[in-house]
Amino acid sequence: MILKDVNTLQKAFAAVETLAAQTPWPDAVTLVKPEHADNGGFWPQGFRAAGVSAGIKSKRKDLMAIVSDKPASAAAVFTTNLCCAAPVVVSKAHLECSASSMRAIICNSGNANAATGDQGMRDARSMAASTSALLGVKPEEILVASTGVIGVPLPLDKILAALDMIPDALERESCFDAAEAIMTTDTFPKFFAVDVRLSNATVRIAGIAKGSGMICPNMATMLGFLVTDASIEPELLKLMLQSANAESFNAITVDGDTSTNDMVAILAGGNGPCIQQGSPDAELFYQALRHLMIFLAKLIVIDGEGATKLVEISVEGARDNHDAERAARTVANSSLVKTAIHGEDANWGRIIGALGRSGAHFNPEDLVVRFNDLAILEPGFISNFSEDEAKTILSKNSYVISIVLGQGSGKSVIWTCDLSKEYVEINGSYRT
Amino acid sequence: MILKDVNTLQKAFAAVETLAAQTPWPDAVTLVKPEHADNGGFWPQGFRAAGVSAGIKSKRKDLMAIVSDKPASAAAVFTTNLCCAAPVVVSKAHLECSASSMRAIICNSGNANAATGDQGMRDARSMAASTSALLGVKPEEILVASTGVIGVPLPLDKILAALDMIPDALERESCFDAAEAIMTTDTFPKFFAVDVRLSNATVRIAGIAKGSGMICPNMATMLGFLVTDASIEPELLKLMLQSANAESFNAITVDGDTSTNDMVAILAGGNGPCIQQGSPDAELFYQALRHLMIFLAKLIVIDGEGATKLVEISVEGARDNHDAERAARTVANSSLVKTAIHGEDANWGRIIGALGRSGAHFNPEDLVVRFNDLAILEPGFISNFSEDEAKTILSKNSYVISIVLGQGSGKSVIWTCDLSKEYVEINGSYRT
Repeated sequence: MILKDVNTLQKAFAAVETLAAQTPWPDAVTLVKPEHADNGGFWPQGFRAAGVSAGIKSKRKDLMAIVSDKPASAAAVFTTNLCCAAPVVVSKAHLECSASSMRAIICNSGNANAATGDQGMRDARSMAASTSALLGVKPEEILVASTGVIGVPLPLDKILAALDMIPDALERESCFDAAEAIMTTDTFPKFFAVDVRLSNATVRIAGIAKGSGMICPNMATMLGFLVTDASIEPELLKLMLQSANAESFNAITVDGDTSTNDMVAILAGGNGPCIQQGSPDAELFYQALRHLMIFLAKLIVIDGEGATKLVEISVEGARDNHDAERAARTVANSSLVKTAIHGEDANWGRIIGALGRSGAHFNPEDLVVRFNDLAILEPGFISNFSEDEAKTILSKNSYVISIVLGQGSGKSVIWTCDLSKEYVEINGSYRT
Repeated sequence: MILKDVNTLQKAFAAVETLAAQTPWPDAVTLVKPEHADNGGFWPQGFRAAGVSAGIKSKRKDLMAIVSDKPASAAAVFTTNLCCAAPVVVSKAHLECSASSMRAIICNSGNANAATGDQGMRDARSMAASTSALLGVKPEEILVASTGVIGVPLPLDKILAALDMIPDALERESCFDAAEAIMTTDTFPKFFAVDVRLSNATVRIAGIAKGSGMICPNMATMLGFLVTDASIEPELLKLMLQSANAESFNAITVDGDTSTNDMVAILAGGNGPCIQQGSPDAELFYQALRHLMIFLAKLIVIDGEGATKLVEISVEGARDNHDAERAARTVANSSLVKTAIHGEDANWGRIIGALGRSGAHFNPEDLVVRFNDLAILEPGFISNFSEDEAKTILSKNSYVISIVLGQGSGKSVIWTCDLSKEYVEINGSYRT
């Protein structure tokens, strides 16, 4: 989805509008229009957020804070990468020590504070401690995150100096600034909020995210921060986050690489109604959260480095869901499939080539492949599609590749993008 | 290794000369100079080969035959892709039925005869049967192979008509023609031969290969055909081929995709001395074969689609060899590492990011990363290298990235190339 010649905020609005129209929102959900999302129109009651420039990235916002007026229930999922970054280690420990009661999230962009050894650990703790001092809360009530280049010491002095700007910035309650301050190679800020009509009240869920390169699901694959005014016990919040994450941020891929810094966190501030496990409200809330997270995840794919297409890889008829996921991920990550998507080439041979090496169980003779509703391959290797019809679909910004394995009822959906020359351009010179 | 502005044969000579100088050939091995490789100067005694134009690819050679004057011992390894092509199925059956005694290999390029169903099976059998009739041998004494586009019926008529040209072409004993006839997106023909001084005689081993896209080790990853005049029992030949293959064709990667058609076959014609299992000659022969196969495999990486660099990923100190291989393969296949290699960017953060998600066991604090002899990362995340020295290495056409995991004695070597815009260009429009 190339959205050129518009400024980043217009890009964000355009991406949100396109996606919002495609997303099958539950009935109980009302979308917060993106153009109404700033100046207090975005964050749920009890939350404020800010984005300021600490000077890590030249002249761009690079330090974000989300603050809850009172202790909030928190849950988070983190990267499974063995080389996880210092802030990931510190945030996990803080969740543990504070019994999942949190007051704020502090996050910088431009430097990942990863592979920075003992100094990195001290820096991540300092960043949390200084934020806690500023807000008058305990250090373990702060979640800390970083994103950017790996292996370079965190410019802690710049971050600590910039913290002084946070209180004033919080008063502006800007969602744009916060979403912008966590961007790295993202080309537009990613934010979205929904209102959910529960049985007796309405709650808001709002989220910001960043992604772009190094996006491969194996937990979170990027940064996502969600807040809600609902009151939810940490245990239920964690169940909901993990489950929704598996179908959203973990179901996208840009380049198959999993970052050292991935984190998705949610804070439930408790100013709104209380949501009990097993209640109809819990189901309503969960579905809204899941759709919001899928929405933010797709925004990340749309803004994948060099990406021009958002393609859903849907696998059905697998022996089980695990097998379906293997098949879908292998197709979604295949460089040959991704370049064919980029070239708008109906090269289904590459799709079955990827399926064949995925490890999923199937009989090649049973395979069915469709682009949207157009049958490309039918059982017995019958392939009689119209190249023109295929071209019409492949030239769209967004479509579905459906694969039926003919084994059982296992299924999986993964969202991917194309592999373009711009991806190589961007990643050939990221560090220098 | 971009070798522009020269014709394909000059490219081949240049690539061979560059690699030959780098390869640590065993003492017993004498290289056959590539410029002497045509007109009877290449094939071992008892073998002839030909490459002709069947018209599958417009105006280019696309049908290859290698013929043994008498029944030859044969061994082969095949793709593990579940969607393997018809010729793979047929060749496996022929090896079984003929008790590994073979007379010829027939191979077309331009069409993979993969995902072609029952008709594809009939076509592959016809291709073998017609070749056997031409040579006056049994159909099961023919290995048949195809490479090219997937899912399009094999133009069998063209192949059968072109078979008539094979006898005359065989008389020319051209290695260039044969190597050229199996090319797809390769930019130069790949061939090399060596003489091996055994205890009482000298034997020749000669091989041709093709690769380019869809190259990922999981067996053979491409086509490789080897012949020798030595006399070797099929069982020993198979052991040698499998073992050498694991360290050569299975240790290279261009884009992580494994083809439906991969095959590496060797024929031992029996005109030369007999090599017994466990003898010093067997070891000499094996080492020569292994080095020749590594050499051909590296030629494939050098000619990887859009590739400009040949990079050896060497992992040591792993818990075991399997863990080392996981680590090496993950780094070698990472799009982020491959674009950094392309951009000549000393971005070691991406290397440890890939290591961290590889599943290999290690303590991140113990990691050592070197570019050739230059330490980039030392234990405790100490990274004090000179950017200029790193740049000098990264600007070379070929270098080694060494990784030490600090766990045990497991090790693995994988060869990879960079990911360039040309890769996207080539693969965005392969089929159409």
